Amino acid sequence: MHIVHRVGIQAPADKVYAALTTLDGLAGWWTRDTTGSARPGGAIDFRFRTAGGDEIGGFGMDVLEQEPQRRVRWRVKDGPPEWVGTEIDFDLAQEDGFTIVRFGHRQWREDSEFMAHCSTKWATFLLSLRDWVETGRGQPAPNDLKISNWH
Amino acid sequence: MHIVHRVGIQAPADKVYAALTTLDGLAGWWTRDTTGSARPGGAIDFRFRTAGGDEIGGFGMDVLEQEPQRRVRWRVKDGPPEWVGTEIDFDLAQEDGFTIVRFGHRQWREDSEFMAHCSTKWATFLLSLRDWVETGRGQPAPNDLKISNWH
Repeated sequence: MHIVHRVGIQAPADKVYAALTTLDGLAGWWTRDTTGSARPGGAIDFRFRTAGGDEIGGFGMDVLEQEPQRRVRWRVKDGPPEWVGTEIDFDLAQEDGFTIVRFGHRQWREDSEFMAHCSTKWATFLLSLRDWVETGRGQPAPNDLKISNWH
Repeated sequence: MHIVHRVGIQAPADKVYAALTTLDGLAGWWTRDTTGSARPGGAIDFRFRTAGGDEIGGFGMDVLEQEPQRRVRWRVKDGPPEWVGTEIDFDLAQEDGFTIVRFGHRQWREDSEFMAHCSTKWATFLLSLRDWVETGRGQPAPNDLKISNWH
């Protein structure tokens, strides 16, 4: 089972790529508490907190692959059991004045309710990525769009 | 391959169910041009138009199943070839003061770029469903959130 999404961003590929391969970029659209090394061979730590600062959870990712302006791939090494071992990839392409982001979060072991939640959350974060790149204003956690009782 | 999503709506299940089983409800969050019969055994025709009124495309659905306040299931009988034969289901449950909608668009034959686009669009339409039920203001086509060159 895979989660897949596709969004178009009206900006050059190098700006989108920077948002996926720098700590500042990632903190601009996914979660403000992003640390580690976003370089190939590095590991990135994404922490999620309440508005009050309490930690809710997080993910540790190994950076498996980076091809400038084209592709980024991570593997989850720490986090909820459903996520550990799954892979996340972003493929970039140019079409009609957009940088198209094809997103995959792959190799889920089962089609769970949590996977459905994560699928919807990824859509909102990819639109946050778009807003961050196009306007400089994303909605990273803890200011992310809440979609249910699971946040 | 399935598209799955999960959103929570702060409203009673009967209001969410009405938004999935009446033409007015469906027109409030998916596409304004919704006609046919939304009753079990009926067929619903969803058409999508530009703001100027030109038809872009649409879907014909057979209503396979309706269980009040619990479940709705459709099968696609007309539309893009990738959609024909696929099934769409909405399962409702009560949790923490929310009506939880578990959504599935199932039995895609391949993991295509179009499926990725539809996955992201479904997320935006399910948030439109939420807004329609909670506030009376959704974002149905042609006023739907545009996510790329594919709209």
